[in-house]
Amino acid sequence: MSELKNDVFLRALMREPVPYTPLWLMRQAGRYLPEYRETRARAGSFLKLAQNPDYACEVTLQPLRRFDFDAAILFSDILTIPHAMGLGLDFITGEGPRFAHPLRTEDDVNKLQVPDMESLKYVFDAVSVIRRELDGKVPLIGFAGSPWTIGCYMVEGQGSADYRLIKSMMYSRPDLVHRILDINTRATTEYLNHQIDAGAQAVMIFDSWGGVLADNKFDDFSLQYTRRVIQGLKRENEGRTVPVIVFTKGGGQWLEKIALCGADAVGLDWTVNLAQARQRIGDRVALQGNLDPNVLFGGEAAVREQARSVIDDFGPVGKGGHVFNLGHGISQFTPPEAVEALVDEVHRYSRSKHA
Amino acid sequence: MSELKNDVFLRALMREPVPYTPLWLMRQAGRYLPEYRETRARAGSFLKLAQNPDYACEVTLQPLRRFDFDAAILFSDILTIPHAMGLGLDFITGEGPRFAHPLRTEDDVNKLQVPDMESLKYVFDAVSVIRRELDGKVPLIGFAGSPWTIGCYMVEGQGSADYRLIKSMMYSRPDLVHRILDINTRATTEYLNHQIDAGAQAVMIFDSWGGVLADNKFDDFSLQYTRRVIQGLKRENEGRTVPVIVFTKGGGQWLEKIALCGADAVGLDWTVNLAQARQRIGDRVALQGNLDPNVLFGGEAAVREQARSVIDDFGPVGKGGHVFNLGHGISQFTPPEAVEALVDEVHRYSRSKHA
Repeated sequence: MSELKNDVFLRALMREPVPYTPLWLMRQAGRYLPEYRETRARAGSFLKLAQNPDYACEVTLQPLRRFDFDAAILFSDILTIPHAMGLGLDFITGEGPRFAHPLRTEDDVNKLQVPDMESLKYVFDAVSVIRRELDGKVPLIGFAGSPWTIGCYMVEGQGSADYRLIKSMMYSRPDLVHRILDINTRATTEYLNHQIDAGAQAVMIFDSWGGVLADNKFDDFSLQYTRRVIQGLKRENEGRTVPVIVFTKGGGQWLEKIALCGADAVGLDWTVNLAQARQRIGDRVALQGNLDPNVLFGGEAAVREQARSVIDDFGPVGKGGHVFNLGHGISQFTPPEAVEALVDEVHRYSRSKHA
Repeated sequence: MSELKNDVFLRALMREPVPYTPLWLMRQAGRYLPEYRETRARAGSFLKLAQNPDYACEVTLQPLRRFDFDAAILFSDILTIPHAMGLGLDFITGEGPRFAHPLRTEDDVNKLQVPDMESLKYVFDAVSVIRRELDGKVPLIGFAGSPWTIGCYMVEGQGSADYRLIKSMMYSRPDLVHRILDINTRATTEYLNHQIDAGAQAVMIFDSWGGVLADNKFDDFSLQYTRRVIQGLKRENEGRTVPVIVFTKGGGQWLEKIALCGADAVGLDWTVNLAQARQRIGDRVALQGNLDPNVLFGGEAAVREQARSVIDDFGPVGKGGHVFNLGHGISQFTPPEAVEALVDEVHRYSRSKHA
């Protein structure tokens, strides 16, 4: 493997000194880029794009040709695992992911198994190809959904406004949901370890739907499984720590316990104040976030001002670690020039905080 | 007006001693009741149901015939005000509210005016009719959306997953959004005062979308306007205080400041722990909430257990006040017998906490 030329992202995750605040954006390889839309059209569908390592590599690298991001993230989807379990994933244009065979009955749940990782080889191949093509420019992030979050899709069959189906199961048959989550946990641990073996230099767990749980259910149905995944991960590769980032959207109220789950860094959405987050948890973990993605529609002056506001909220870095990001994936409608301004402002303005 | 026979709800909101924890449910007059669906079919549409005081009265009273709720809430919608402003409200089956003329340009915003309350007379008439028909059985709650929340619909034209349009305007032309919110504030204050004059015995402000704001925008774009509405309200009627409840869905992280906005009670969604909420804000305000509406799909044992859990979280009532509710509106798919069990459990189990 080529030597890593820019390790600012990895060092910030480990709360080591860095000259500026590194940044990357969730969904940075995506529809807001015309070259992505072109490649996707060529591939024919989202799934074909994700399942072909060369296409996946191509779209992973596209944003890095335009913007001075400090990390690349594997182009893939959190639903590859349930797809490999036989749930039949499809992406309906304009409606998002949909499973042909959601888990609705005890029988459905009893048939569920940890998939053979061979069926996910296209993901690990993509990691290898991307690492080779990145040639050490920036680190590559691998990722997976949290056991709870993929479980939501597996039971609902698609996104949901209220998560009624999985919550109905959770309140009436918690044993079935725990069985799903246990299987998801084992699958996710293996899956991320295979990504690490293939060359992922950091991994992120997206608990996108942890925040829909009631306060008295979050630990039992989301956090404990995320913790188990992290406990099972290889934390070193190529002689270097592989940092783990956990992001529970809507989890700001549970920050204290999320910070104890074993992750090196915690992602935050834009409803959390970074200064208060540091007051609450100290510098036990690095923080990643947390600009409202809609700021990117406000014009250059607003982008720069709000970027500075996030950096100011984090404050002098000291023994902490901050990775700049949005508080959620970038919108497909984002003008690319707003991203240009954001990268410039974050890199420039943050230097004073790293004195 | 007939004498109020059950004032437990009003007393709990004012943190006065009560024998048990009162409860009502957001959207208690709604689609989960077959008699509601029958009346709605007769009316022809949601709007016709809401705009006819006799129909509105009928559906308001329906849940009280089945369940021993401690309050009635006016059957209406938070979007009556923008409809009266000329935005052209319609309810598309299965898709929710939609405005024919959303606010998209500076010109749209400049034309916006506080509507003549005469155009909302059907709401105040409904309040009068309901009060007469309630005959003092339980108090009647009036309500409105928060200026920010109705502003979201006015700019987006409908519900939204990301509130991109209003946030684009907020970040690029905050002056336009403030103008909308100022007009909404004046309209909402007048609107609630007319409801109080017509007989509403408590009022609730639904800040359903306050929680989508970034931490550094919530005060400026939501809370300050809610505070202004409350400052303008008549707080006494028929020789009794008219308590005000504010509910910011997803606002748990901002509880300290929401508790200072002038409301007597703060509604909480299910992500907030009631014990921690009391630790954070003391008994400065009463709390309303906060069962996950999906518990009602878990079967009777789960309903009773989770209801007790909410009551236990609140703890001994002491100088506090607790009104039991869901953390969001009841789902249209809810089996009515689950509500029966909930009401029974809350009334029965809570007596020990009021010793």
